[in-house]
Amino acid sequence: MERLTSDELRDCWPILSQPERVEAFQHMGRADSDDFFLELSAADQAVLLLAMEEGERRLWVRLLAPDDAADVVQLVSPTERSAVLGLLDETTRLEVTALLAYAEDAAGGLMSPRFARVRPEMSVNEAIRYLQRQAKEHLETIYYAYVLDPEQRLEGVVSFRDLFAAAGEKPLSEVMHTDVVSVRDSMDQESVAQVMAEHDLNAIPVVDELGHMKGIVTVDDIVDVVQREATEDIQKLGGMESLDTPYLQTPMLEMVRKRAGWLSALFLGELLTASAMSRFEDEIAKAVVLALFVPLIISSGGNSGSQATTLIIRAMALGEVKLGDWWRIMRREVVAGLSLGLILAALGLVRILVWERAFHSYGEHAVAVAATVALSLIGIVTWGTLAGSMLPFLIRRAGFDPASASAPFVATLVDVSGLVIYFSVAQVVLRGSLL
Amino acid sequence: MERLTSDELRDCWPILSQPERVEAFQHMGRADSDDFFLELSAADQAVLLLAMEEGERRLWVRLLAPDDAADVVQLVSPTERSAVLGLLDETTRLEVTALLAYAEDAAGGLMSPRFARVRPEMSVNEAIRYLQRQAKEHLETIYYAYVLDPEQRLEGVVSFRDLFAAAGEKPLSEVMHTDVVSVRDSMDQESVAQVMAEHDLNAIPVVDELGHMKGIVTVDDIVDVVQREATEDIQKLGGMESLDTPYLQTPMLEMVRKRAGWLSALFLGELLTASAMSRFEDEIAKAVVLALFVPLIISSGGNSGSQATTLIIRAMALGEVKLGDWWRIMRREVVAGLSLGLILAALGLVRILVWERAFHSYGEHAVAVAATVALSLIGIVTWGTLAGSMLPFLIRRAGFDPASASAPFVATLVDVSGLVIYFSVAQVVLRGSLL
Repeated sequence: MERLTSDELRDCWPILSQPERVEAFQHMGRADSDDFFLELSAADQAVLLLAMEEGERRLWVRLLAPDDAADVVQLVSPTERSAVLGLLDETTRLEVTALLAYAEDAAGGLMSPRFARVRPEMSVNEAIRYLQRQAKEHLETIYYAYVLDPEQRLEGVVSFRDLFAAAGEKPLSEVMHTDVVSVRDSMDQESVAQVMAEHDLNAIPVVDELGHMKGIVTVDDIVDVVQREATEDIQKLGGMESLDTPYLQTPMLEMVRKRAGWLSALFLGELLTASAMSRFEDEIAKAVVLALFVPLIISSGGNSGSQATTLIIRAMALGEVKLGDWWRIMRREVVAGLSLGLILAALGLVRILVWERAFHSYGEHAVAVAATVALSLIGIVTWGTLAGSMLPFLIRRAGFDPASASAPFVATLVDVSGLVIYFSVAQVVLRGSLL
Repeated sequence: MERLTSDELRDCWPILSQPERVEAFQHMGRADSDDFFLELSAADQAVLLLAMEEGERRLWVRLLAPDDAADVVQLVSPTERSAVLGLLDETTRLEVTALLAYAEDAAGGLMSPRFARVRPEMSVNEAIRYLQRQAKEHLETIYYAYVLDPEQRLEGVVSFRDLFAAAGEKPLSEVMHTDVVSVRDSMDQESVAQVMAEHDLNAIPVVDELGHMKGIVTVDDIVDVVQREATEDIQKLGGMESLDTPYLQTPMLEMVRKRAGWLSALFLGELLTASAMSRFEDEIAKAVVLALFVPLIISSGGNSGSQATTLIIRAMALGEVKLGDWWRIMRREVVAGLSLGLILAALGLVRILVWERAFHSYGEHAVAVAATVALSLIGIVTWGTLAGSMLPFLIRRAGFDPASASAPFVATLVDVSGLVIYFSVAQVVLRGSLL
């Protein structure tokens, strides 16, 4: 393999197989390779580490910050875990072991334990000199220093900028901000991202239930979290299990499995449409024209349901809509659903009557058929919108992720009830004429 | 209205109307209100500013950094724009006016022009003292200093941490990193977010076409961008125009308009299913049993298409899949589609034959009907998967946003072709028996 620069390798990395990656990395110039290694995902870092000779591993593992090392350790098999931990220096090993105790998607699993700690009675000049010494070590950031009492409880925060702007002899207790926004170590990462975005923070302290400071989460970790959570939600909304790896790196078998699960479940649900239809077999035999509009009717219900469920799930993920808002949302969505239903009904009515006038497509009862389609559309679109908007609330109330109310799931639910609505309307409107 | 603390107000802010927000803000304690104001969205800031007395406005507008002030100015009506600009001091006004020239969603529209500039021949100690003085002014960040030549071209970058760790008398040219990752001012914000996430940067310099440094984009702005872009994509995938405002703050009329547009377009497309069905009216009249499976068949095609299009659009948004990858993706998706089709066909076959054995639901030709449904499913699921995965490439190739290939759009496309596939298979399989 020819020798690649780190930029070239960065570009073609996603399309390389694992053995190719290992080989390319081993052929890289030493000068570029450490930055390159640090930019890789934890999964890639783990693969490269395990492919290395024993003697070389230590060098690379020790390059990682404790939170990144913990991510890598979590990804190797349990048998190799202690070997990898053994490569770390004593301090880091203790930190990594502590981090491993947290769920990967909680604040505790995301935080770095290496933050700058200062005492309230230090002067500004002492703090600056202290941070200057610390800058040579591997702190996650030196731009915020956290003021802790002797029990490690968080009392305040000073930014480097505050220190520079303040008079040198002042004690930190007079300079620090005491209204510190912090998060609990057990808070899930999506909520941490929301708190940080809301307050425009670059780093947020993580505390345990007694208020002891355990670490900091920095905003660059949050960008990854936000991207990953959005990807998960989008894939669930698309009607499949979320992939854990980039599309091109997901093995075919795993991808088919993750798609087939939901697709089969939806198919089994959709089989109910065949049962629903067979209840109306006589009506279809008498008025075949009714069958012509079945796809139109059910897809309109499905589309309006998809819209509503997508809107509500995203608003929930962003914290714009809470569980208690269901009643307000329901009133809004009934109005929206009725308006949308009326618009589609008008379009359907015009289409059928124009086609009838131009091509005589629907026989002598065209007006009655048009009325059936239009009335059904109003009912189905309103119902689809209502069901689509309320389902995320029900799922969340039951304790599950609302994003599981995927758009195809809502569409399937609405398909079955849509058919019942359509043929019931037909039985009333067309009684005595076609039926 | 009773006086609220900033935390209480933060909690109930989303559910307040505009006049209530203005009133609540005016009743807030002065001590909290500036932090609170800075955390608000540009839209909220604009509303509050315009509601204030002339004399008070200047105070609040000057609190904003130039990039935030530019966002606010962009949101007020053109007639009020110059009045708001007039409230700024001379320097900021020039900066804001320069920022207004950039598209809001390009790097230039996102950047702050207030970064720390240093010269390569400065010593480390001089740079630290210089940054200490600058810290008292309103720089966006003092944690990175950018080393510029006399023509303002970017030569390198030093972090504060580098400065602290280096010997004080060294010139910056020996301490700085010269392999600086920068972006062009015209780069769109999604790409900027990708570059920053890839390189794990806290701030990225923005340069014009001649390499002159114009500003920096910081990672806290990028979190907002990533959230907003994901919301846009999710809403488009759900089959509607993206809302520009949070769900509960979007006026009903605007929301119905944004949903009705796509819903009507999909409805008009879906009308083609009625035309497709009417071509097979004779077959349906002869074999009503065929109509029973229409919803099942078309929704399976739609669901598999939704999955594929969702996967590809997200992979494109994350930069995992490029335009040139279409051929690889096509091969993968044909395999995935065939596998998924076979799974669903097997499920359908079993269901029909079991129901026939148990309830005699489908008459003497049940096996032929089952074969028709199963063969159609293989064809339709493969076609749905293929169409769903390739459509984003076509749309992107044509220069549009691939997220416009919403899942409902793909489903509609697949519905029409699915019907043609189903009835064509039926004509072949059932010839001489039912048809």
